[in-house]
Amino acid sequence: MTPIITAFENSPDEGRDLARDMRLRWAFEEVGQPYEVRLLSFAAMKAPAHLALHPFGQIPTYQEGDLVLFETGAILLHIAGAHAGLLPADANARARATAWVFAALNTVEPPIVEREAAGYAERDKPWHRERLPMLDARVATRLDQLSARLGGADWLDGAFSAGDLAMVTVLQRLKGSALLDAHANLAGYVARGEARPAYKRAFEAQLEVFRAARRG
Amino acid sequence: MTPIITAFENSPDEGRDLARDMRLRWAFEEVGQPYEVRLLSFAAMKAPAHLALHPFGQIPTYQEGDLVLFETGAILLHIAGAHAGLLPADANARARATAWVFAALNTVEPPIVEREAAGYAERDKPWHRERLPMLDARVATRLDQLSARLGGADWLDGAFSAGDLAMVTVLQRLKGSALLDAHANLAGYVARGEARPAYKRAFEAQLEVFRAARRG
Repeated sequence: MTPIITAFENSPDEGRDLARDMRLRWAFEEVGQPYEVRLLSFAAMKAPAHLALHPFGQIPTYQEGDLVLFETGAILLHIAGAHAGLLPADANARARATAWVFAALNTVEPPIVEREAAGYAERDKPWHRERLPMLDARVATRLDQLSARLGGADWLDGAFSAGDLAMVTVLQRLKGSALLDAHANLAGYVARGEARPAYKRAFEAQLEVFRAARRG
Repeated sequence: MTPIITAFENSPDEGRDLARDMRLRWAFEEVGQPYEVRLLSFAAMKAPAHLALHPFGQIPTYQEGDLVLFETGAILLHIAGAHAGLLPADANARARATAWVFAALNTVEPPIVEREAAGYAERDKPWHRERLPMLDARVATRLDQLSARLGGADWLDGAFSAGDLAMVTVLQRLKGSALLDAHANLAGYVARGEARPAYKRAFEAQLEVFRAARRG
């Protein structure tokens, strides 16, 4: 049974790939699993039919027969657990890859999202300029630590894993920012992720949604 | 081999149980797995020996023979996967419990932590009073959605699971706040979690660390 995920019908980032369905598209491509996408408007995301699938009214969701899942991290681990390609065979190494998924989503992403959110919601507030160095510093601390751990390695812990997929997609939010460019090894890490054939297929698929919406 | 976790040697919340080692203590008690605790000073948390275990210099870590893990969510899933008591037997139900772990740590906790952090770091700033309604509203949105999903059930998805353990410990951060008290079912949910014998044993164990530190 082909799993069905949900995504925005109108890419809010104009096909730049930052919506969270991209994380699942990439995972499906890495493991060679076909998937279908059901597109939702922002209004539909907050409607009862979608809230029955996702209590917090977000995308993506995952449906496969009777199974309904939400939370990108959980869906990523589900896909990775069901197919070879995103988790090592060794049990300890699998647990460590899971730790990197949580590190990406819980430890590295929150200060990045907070900095972004302030840029949207508080840009015109008198305090925004004064708060920005604090928001930057929180992100910089995490990047310093991540850069120190990655060092000269290609991936965070041995072969490419679900943990790298999650971390690369989190760091992509900082592309073009001096915060990321301050760490050549992290910029290189993101570029390595984006060079993977599975990433490129997923990127094209989400870009096509944007192109189709623009064609109307 | 008895696993070893790390915790603060001086409870920053004076034994109120909000440090993240509590989540693991409770998990160990639920599955009946003995554990040891290695206490760390704040300085030791940022030292190279600890950064080798935890790249972001936090607690808790988990060590079991050769396996070293960080990220509370990943450790919780590791404990839950190795012992009965925190995950259902059915594969789909396990995946849904995992989704609730991510929901607690990724979707519900970040706005709560952000509101707390502003209370610490920006309390004396001229803008704090004006930002507070926005910070409260972000938390309230998540609680409204969570309350709607929980409804009149005891737990989020069938029997008590690792997802409930994570969610209860996240909501505990709001104890005594009008935000939580606005939802009688969520306040009751937290109380049900705290009434579990495993929770009480874990609470006593972390409180004893605080008492011992105070005795000096």
